[in-house]
Amino acid sequence: MAREVRLALVGFGNVGRRFAEQLGGSYARALRAAGVRVRVTGIATARHGGAIDSRGVDLERALRLAARGGSLTSLHRDRAVGDVREFIARVPADVLVEITTLDPRTGQPAAAHVRQALARGLHVVTANKGPVAFALRSLRALALRKGRLFLHEGAVMDGTPVFNLVARCLPGARIEGFRGTLNSTTNLVLSRMEQGLSRDAAVRDAQRLGIAEADPRNDLDGWDAAVKGCALANALMGASVRPSQVRRRGIAGVSLPGVRRALAAGFRTRLVVRGARSRGRVRVSVAPERIPLGDPLSGSGPDAALVLETDLMGEIGVFERGATVDQTAYALLSDLLEIVRRRRSKP
Amino acid sequence: MAREVRLALVGFGNVGRRFAEQLGGSYARALRAAGVRVRVTGIATARHGGAIDSRGVDLERALRLAARGGSLTSLHRDRAVGDVREFIARVPADVLVEITTLDPRTGQPAAAHVRQALARGLHVVTANKGPVAFALRSLRALALRKGRLFLHEGAVMDGTPVFNLVARCLPGARIEGFRGTLNSTTNLVLSRMEQGLSRDAAVRDAQRLGIAEADPRNDLDGWDAAVKGCALANALMGASVRPSQVRRRGIAGVSLPGVRRALAAGFRTRLVVRGARSRGRVRVSVAPERIPLGDPLSGSGPDAALVLETDLMGEIGVFERGATVDQTAYALLSDLLEIVRRRRSKP
Repeated sequence: MAREVRLALVGFGNVGRRFAEQLGGSYARALRAAGVRVRVTGIATARHGGAIDSRGVDLERALRLAARGGSLTSLHRDRAVGDVREFIARVPADVLVEITTLDPRTGQPAAAHVRQALARGLHVVTANKGPVAFALRSLRALALRKGRLFLHEGAVMDGTPVFNLVARCLPGARIEGFRGTLNSTTNLVLSRMEQGLSRDAAVRDAQRLGIAEADPRNDLDGWDAAVKGCALANALMGASVRPSQVRRRGIAGVSLPGVRRALAAGFRTRLVVRGARSRGRVRVSVAPERIPLGDPLSGSGPDAALVLETDLMGEIGVFERGATVDQTAYALLSDLLEIVRRRRSKP
Repeated sequence: MAREVRLALVGFGNVGRRFAEQLGGSYARALRAAGVRVRVTGIATARHGGAIDSRGVDLERALRLAARGGSLTSLHRDRAVGDVREFIARVPADVLVEITTLDPRTGQPAAAHVRQALARGLHVVTANKGPVAFALRSLRALALRKGRLFLHEGAVMDGTPVFNLVARCLPGARIEGFRGTLNSTTNLVLSRMEQGLSRDAAVRDAQRLGIAEADPRNDLDGWDAAVKGCALANALMGASVRPSQVRRRGIAGVSLPGVRRALAAGFRTRLVVRGARSRGRVRVSVAPERIPLGDPLSGSGPDAALVLETDLMGEIGVFERGATVDQTAYALLSDLLEIVRRRRSKP
């Protein structure tokens, strides 16, 4: 008989809704194969109420309500819940899936949610980079103490294996450094500038495609890349770097003629985040660089690429094509299946 | 106390020797961390004799002998061994490391060695693509029956995670197809042609760099890529394709003016191997293609790249930088550590 895993979702935006849709759809085969049955026992949102139902929240109704911006409280089958904090304290679940909207300047509220859930003894899966960039060390220690897993494959490059790649496929190897083009907005803006668009027009283009946000400053000034760089440095290189410690330069100083001249000379201009060991410390930096055509980071368009520098295996690159909400939702499934696998291998 | 794993090496060329060197060198930390002590109890070669020593073959002496082309038989401490077949039958080992020189037209002798060792109840690790391309299904079935592991990360792209990536980091996802530039020689030859060299001069260049063999026909006619494509299709897509069934066109028809014209128009010319499902079957093909600059396969130089097409996670690319003997040796370590991990997790 399939074992049951009870999930609580905190956040029910694009990623959460796609994940919920797929649980009964294309994820069903994978979950069945893993011998597990998933029941979503709670959904919490910041502005559209929440629902706890120990027999399982009706996901189809929840998705219909969310699609028209309605509140989920009509699906609630429990005594009243005040706020997300109380939701996390009470929801009858095994795994908390943290997918709230992040304040990238603080890593909140994701980091607090993760901490509270681990402290309560839940496994936690997140696609948020905040907790990994701002609080990984203490969250890992807490998870270890509680005998629970804190998995975050979706924090960087969505479901493209990055954290799991190093943990599961590069045994014994040490990550000495990395370099990546991890911010889709600047990847796309600089690609469009190579085609002759002004920076402003390129930013509008990225907004029109849903890649850049209405306020694109966190992307253009390199903050988003810095947060991702810290997540990688902390998780893969054992560092404790905060985004505020990153040497950071955005693309404000990158000019259209400069981008065009570089391309004519065989170089793409990209915002590159780097991590490197230097005198016993890990340093993270973000700056525009000229990348020779043919280099793993010389892709065009929004797609992210990452090169890991290892001691035993030289350089390994990974790239993602697309960066759709499907790919972020898959990161959650991938981490969830890892929790299932590890529970199964226990006596 | 560290558990001991006894290894037998079949083949002692560049990869085997580097692997043996590193066991006492940079692999020692990883092995210690995994709680394991490795003893090489036998080394067999085709032309320089072999040695079995249940107390452990003296690796430093073996490496010195091999470096000057001498025979290993002076290190033998056992009754006489006739040939490799008898070596595999008798060597007191837990894991066979298969790294002989491959006949890429038949997958031998690697496939026979793997089969014999699994049948005897040894785990097998190989960096040879032959057994995976020519005999994976029956070897997997045999390994399963015997409760042993058959691991082959090094068969394609050296130690860059490919087989392990799919097995360990893409749970629940199905590989729908792949495309790759997996043959270093043609990657380099076509890169050099883009710089203006004739094909013949480019091939000589690749030979001078030790990338192309003295007889480069298996590379230039696409056979090597076809074998790798079959290894991927069989291992990742559940196929049973043999290299002789691959629709294959090499780079003989690729002209210098054609390559230069394509580049001027924004395309690299590369020998691409593809795997795709078509009416319930997996088909593998090899042919020169025009790749737009900026595509994951548009790298310059010899480096291999591979894009996996998945159902749940879109496209994921991996690339390797270098393809040195260190990276092939690392594939063996990586598989060995997986065997150690799985043995440990057993009751």
